[in-house]
Amino acid sequence: MSLSNLDLVNQCDGFPYPESDPTAYLARINTYYQLRVAGHDYALGYMLPSVAEVFRGVPGWQLDDDDRSLTLIAGANAGERSKAVETTLLAMRETGHFKVLNKWRNELYAVYGRGKELLFNVERSASPLLGVVTYGVHLTAYTRSKDTGEIKIWTPRRARTKQTYGGMLDNTVAGGIASGESPFESLVRECAEEASLAEDLVRSKVKAAGTVTYWYIRDERAGGETNLMQPECQYIYDIELPEDTIPKPGDDEVEEFYLWSIDEVKQAMENGEFKPNCALVVLDFLVRHGFLTSENDKDFIEIVSRLHRRLEFPTL
Amino acid sequence: MSLSNLDLVNQCDGFPYPESDPTAYLARINTYYQLRVAGHDYALGYMLPSVAEVFRGVPGWQLDDDDRSLTLIAGANAGERSKAVETTLLAMRETGHFKVLNKWRNELYAVYGRGKELLFNVERSASPLLGVVTYGVHLTAYTRSKDTGEIKIWTPRRARTKQTYGGMLDNTVAGGIASGESPFESLVRECAEEASLAEDLVRSKVKAAGTVTYWYIRDERAGGETNLMQPECQYIYDIELPEDTIPKPGDDEVEEFYLWSIDEVKQAMENGEFKPNCALVVLDFLVRHGFLTSENDKDFIEIVSRLHRRLEFPTL
Repeated sequence: MSLSNLDLVNQCDGFPYPESDPTAYLARINTYYQLRVAGHDYALGYMLPSVAEVFRGVPGWQLDDDDRSLTLIAGANAGERSKAVETTLLAMRETGHFKVLNKWRNELYAVYGRGKELLFNVERSASPLLGVVTYGVHLTAYTRSKDTGEIKIWTPRRARTKQTYGGMLDNTVAGGIASGESPFESLVRECAEEASLAEDLVRSKVKAAGTVTYWYIRDERAGGETNLMQPECQYIYDIELPEDTIPKPGDDEVEEFYLWSIDEVKQAMENGEFKPNCALVVLDFLVRHGFLTSENDKDFIEIVSRLHRRLEFPTL
Repeated sequence: MSLSNLDLVNQCDGFPYPESDPTAYLARINTYYQLRVAGHDYALGYMLPSVAEVFRGVPGWQLDDDDRSLTLIAGANAGERSKAVETTLLAMRETGHFKVLNKWRNELYAVYGRGKELLFNVERSASPLLGVVTYGVHLTAYTRSKDTGEIKIWTPRRARTKQTYGGMLDNTVAGGIASGESPFESLVRECAEEASLAEDLVRSKVKAAGTVTYWYIRDERAGGETNLMQPECQYIYDIELPEDTIPKPGDDEVEEFYLWSIDEVKQAMENGEFKPNCALVVLDFLVRHGFLTSENDKDFIEIVSRLHRRLEFPTL
């Protein structure tokens, strides 16, 4: 396997673009069901017809085949809607309808409306069924040699026992943002949990560096149903670590941390060893730090745009 | 005037998006004329009907009202096409058809096909008539205080006598990329011309940091016809300058350089003092350096995506 950087982008940002491929885009849009909330006449995500079908006749939901929409009609506010969603999903988990629900996480993700208001919370493992935008934080920790200035990146390998993307490479720290949590506080928590990085170090040295956004179509490596749509927004952070600070796995999610040169990271990217969305975060790091340029990648312009896809659903 | 960061983005990236506003997008697409080259069945840009009309019956061009396209049919290769385009534009300049041609620059911009091959060159001042993608370089030079770590940005004011955006604020160095020139070499040249920065300093200290892309609709401040469409790709660079290196105007394009704190820059942005596309480059700098975050701007996700619009025309 030898993947170009654009191949890596295509792997993760797989949904067609309306302006450059209107046929493919419309074919999908006209096949899928829009997820909506009553009183809010716009899509919060796209669902596979086979998934939407399971909601037919379920109390609190209204499936409209002409309109190709599934609308949450229960609940007059975020609390009531969240409760209705939870009730439905717990029942579906019981009946074993969806494989993704077997990995129930007991973590709530937030779904926002156009006014950036919370519409409802949804169990994390169920969010790809609904196709809603999810949010995460990704940190790249790097060292800079005092002698040569060379930058190396702390790169973890995911535990081989992990059900999703087991054994693949990851960003130094990464995690989903729970409903109600701010990106930065989420990052501080994950830094402790995943890499044993001291809170004061993180708070004083971490730098925000934008977002990476894409529209992922899940494959078998994600576990559970395939072809579920997962538009995502990752808040990006960098931290330059002192050369004597060594990240250590704080839980059983990480097997080992490597301190790799840019060339070693690039080689692993080319080999397809990175989890798909983590590869995008690496590309963004390489762009921002001047390692990936118009001079060394012919797809540079396309890549930089694609790392920052404008999602068509409301976001926070 | 008090502009939000999203206002600044909207000023420069004014063309509607098909996925979020299909009605406005299609209304425009179905009104404008596509610019094409014979044998290449795709749009290189969009032209106002009033502009396309002027090409009716001109040798080497074919206007199709049903298809709403203007096709360059003269020339079998880039050299021949460029010659045909030049002949047409020189004639139009003579007859005074277009105000933008009164600012003839004698600089050639490149127009590329889907294989990234050069299709033809076009005189810089004429590129907005054709609506083709143009390319530039923008550099942010900054200082970092040895004592406090505070970052300040070298911000020039354009000469008040400049015909376009006279007296507005700019990025430290900015310029268009001539056909055949690489982004980096273009930058080195502009750094000498516009800010008197030594070539060896630039070559050794400048860092590439991605692109900023947007679809600008020209207003009266750009000079000449309004509502011309200008999709642009700016290659972005940073340079940290020693505190005793002072940029100096090398030509008559810049009135004065200010060394401004981030707060001073932000205030000038809010006041609408920056040239529209330069404001976007400042926003990108603030994002990459952690000054603009999800914590201090509610439109953060939208802004980061919009700074990197995926252009629907072929790019280099």
